Amino acid sequence: MAKEKKFVEAITSMEDDFAQWYTDVVKKAELVDYSSVKGCLVIKPAGYAIWENIQKELDKRFKETGVENVYMPLFIPESLLQKEKDHVEGFAPEVAWVTHGGLEPLQERLCVRPTSETLFCDFYARAVQSHRDLPKLFNQWCSVVRWEKTTRPFLRSREFLWQEGHTAHATAKEAQERTEQMLNLYADFCEEVLAMPVIRGRKTDKEKFAGAEATYTIEAMMHDGKALQSGTSHNFGDGFAKAFNIQYTDKENHLQYVHQTSWGMSTRLIGAIIMVHGDNSGLVLPPRIAPVQVMIIPIQQQKEGILDKAREVRDMLKAADLRVKVDDSDKSPGWKFSEAEMRGIPVRVELGPKDIAAGQAVIVRRDNREKQIVPLDGLAEKIRETLETMQKDMYERAKAHMGSHIYEAADYETFKQIIDEKPGFVKAMWCGDEACENKIKEDTTATSRCMPFKQDHISDRCVCCGRPAKAMVYWGKAY
Amino acid sequence: MAKEKKFVEAITSMEDDFAQWYTDVVKKAELVDYSSVKGCLVIKPAGYAIWENIQKELDKRFKETGVENVYMPLFIPESLLQKEKDHVEGFAPEVAWVTHGGLEPLQERLCVRPTSETLFCDFYARAVQSHRDLPKLFNQWCSVVRWEKTTRPFLRSREFLWQEGHTAHATAKEAQERTEQMLNLYADFCEEVLAMPVIRGRKTDKEKFAGAEATYTIEAMMHDGKALQSGTSHNFGDGFAKAFNIQYTDKENHLQYVHQTSWGMSTRLIGAIIMVHGDNSGLVLPPRIAPVQVMIIPIQQQKEGILDKAREVRDMLKAADLRVKVDDSDKSPGWKFSEAEMRGIPVRVELGPKDIAAGQAVIVRRDNREKQIVPLDGLAEKIRETLETMQKDMYERAKAHMGSHIYEAADYETFKQIIDEKPGFVKAMWCGDEACENKIKEDTTATSRCMPFKQDHISDRCVCCGRPAKAMVYWGKAY
Repeated sequence: MAKEKKFVEAITSMEDDFAQWYTDVVKKAELVDYSSVKGCLVIKPAGYAIWENIQKELDKRFKETGVENVYMPLFIPESLLQKEKDHVEGFAPEVAWVTHGGLEPLQERLCVRPTSETLFCDFYARAVQSHRDLPKLFNQWCSVVRWEKTTRPFLRSREFLWQEGHTAHATAKEAQERTEQMLNLYADFCEEVLAMPVIRGRKTDKEKFAGAEATYTIEAMMHDGKALQSGTSHNFGDGFAKAFNIQYTDKENHLQYVHQTSWGMSTRLIGAIIMVHGDNSGLVLPPRIAPVQVMIIPIQQQKEGILDKAREVRDMLKAADLRVKVDDSDKSPGWKFSEAEMRGIPVRVELGPKDIAAGQAVIVRRDNREKQIVPLDGLAEKIRETLETMQKDMYERAKAHMGSHIYEAADYETFKQIIDEKPGFVKAMWCGDEACENKIKEDTTATSRCMPFKQDHISDRCVCCGRPAKAMVYWGKAY
Repeated sequence: MAKEKKFVEAITSMEDDFAQWYTDVVKKAELVDYSSVKGCLVIKPAGYAIWENIQKELDKRFKETGVENVYMPLFIPESLLQKEKDHVEGFAPEVAWVTHGGLEPLQERLCVRPTSETLFCDFYARAVQSHRDLPKLFNQWCSVVRWEKTTRPFLRSREFLWQEGHTAHATAKEAQERTEQMLNLYADFCEEVLAMPVIRGRKTDKEKFAGAEATYTIEAMMHDGKALQSGTSHNFGDGFAKAFNIQYTDKENHLQYVHQTSWGMSTRLIGAIIMVHGDNSGLVLPPRIAPVQVMIIPIQQQKEGILDKAREVRDMLKAADLRVKVDDSDKSPGWKFSEAEMRGIPVRVELGPKDIAAGQAVIVRRDNREKQIVPLDGLAEKIRETLETMQKDMYERAKAHMGSHIYEAADYETFKQIIDEKPGFVKAMWCGDEACENKIKEDTTATSRCMPFKQDHISDRCVCCGRPAKAMVYWGKAY
């Protein structure tokens, strides 16, 4: 085994250089490739299949809450983007502009959507007349473009895939409920499917979405202790409705503005999966999201009957609704083991002549390498159990990691020292003044991640300025 | 009933003005809305749900043949687009150009992909080294942009949704087989799922894809007798491979160029469904593709127990895997009937106090209005049968319509007269010279639709010039 390992080029160890480790995993697990377009990626089959599973599961959960999918244009006329003041200020500096269609210059330039609030508002202004037309609970799956200066696969790229939900409601209360409902849906999805614990909370005004009244976020902790904003849900109040004149007639025949929300998750989640669960052998995929859950690796496959048996076992596992493949390539078993590990496949099944003679197989968990010898009769059931245990263990491990990397600071010296020395988040009180956020960022590079729904009392005073505290905030360095 | 109909605004009758009928249906069935971006559409929930079903079914069929999904960038650098001479000539005049990213002008302008051959080739040139890397069987679901001058919903718009498959093979034979395999997959899908008969054949050189060695097509006949190209599959030979230098080392260690294909289907199919199956009451959706297959319409729903029973029946049908909704809005039953008809819902279930007392329901087929009184016990089974019969009948009806609108012409006078007087296709012989295609188009506006795989012998000579014939061609006016 150890000898065979050399066949797979080693990746940088995460302890030596986490950023390089990440880049190596993304590349060696064949999730993406660079393209000729700077800052844009090719998402390869192994990466895209993860995204398809994320889509399938999220889409199902959206639809259960009454959401319907639609598709809005890729382009936004400049005049439309400019209708909401804060929104255009936030996005105009980072959009791509189309100036020519075919051989002709355009009369008005179009930006490639960085997000589609303006298009949905433009549509709602026409589609919403009466209280009977509400709520509108729309979502779209698409790509968006933001002209970022520095990019990293999945985490920050000039084009990325996402979903963006946009809803319009009759009342402020309904909009607030939907905003929270979708944030909780995101959090549940991350915890239940991606085995990734998150902190749910509200962004400070400094960190909120351009044009939002309030932004809610889920923040996950990566293995290096840094934060990754993994999903956001915005309450727009009636700000966009006033800018776009989206009004409806209520039951008493009065004209009212609608209240709106939007919420999004993106291929960034794939980056989160890598950085929460990965190890020095590569990717580790939570079983519920893994495109291939089981890789069967035949031993001495040149011998008669081995490959046939491997395929028979595959068909048996497939019939039990497991996502399974046989690696029947002409590589050595050791090479195949390393490859399956690099790709994060949750369980590998080793099947050789002796196993077959004994009516058994060896199954190995990706996360902790635990090996079991299991009778072929009942293999599917045993693998299903193993996958369920692994899913649960991965979540618990990530939760324990997060828990052991959260600190408290009541004074600024302690705060700075922790941020400087210990990877992770710091819970500390805040006065509510943006000036303190700016100072903390300048002094430590940490930013306010969120004001969590679950507020603890660390002290009475702002950790930075000493004035009376208004909220407890999670602070951390972020991707 | 007749009295209630007035509640739904009438649509133009297809006999009076087919184009206006189409536009009315698209709008009134709530499939799309116009957007503020000229030539780009908003696809509304009822339209997008059809596309989702098309995607689900096609994607499953693709994957069964070994195809994997990927995602390539939205943008193509100008220099990349220019690498294949014919391809750039075909597409450069109709692409949208991005010239600025954020506040900076780009060093090289980027076009928004009109199709992604160049991006896949650029990727394959890096990813393919050895015969072990072949075949590559990739597909992507995305939107593409072509700066069309005149646009029509679903049929021709500046942005549309589609899938584009791109494969690379070791041999010319394999590429040809894949080209035909995907064309046949498309044809089977149209016939089995969309209940839409198609003619399978090869495009003439004049009509083939820019850069292809050969283009294969499926051509469907709309209700007005015009042709709609509904899917194409291209064999590129090694043309792109040479332009992009995509080479692999074969088993004998020789460098070889790959052979490539591409194939695509788009939201245009939704236009085809409308124009093949629709009638003067609106859309008629084939049951297999209908997002809602059954609409339950309660009668006298204000009476106690009616709505409860309707929901109970809905849950029963849902449990039997039917896609079903209850229309519990406060509109009148007549209005609801008309709306369900306009939206093309295959079966409506009427359920009133008398029905409930008698333990029965009235079911009405959308396509022929056939009414049946059915016991509630066994309703799901009866509806399933009805949907299956309807699916089959719709296909047979469309096939009979196409069959009765195909003519033969052995001489040019007859040819011109048929094209002029009779909607439909004309089978006629062709010498193989583009000059005759041009003359026919000029004289009649008809174009060569395809050289069908099933060749008939109409005469020995070209219908246009009288020289010896090389192939039988279907001619027709087209969307």
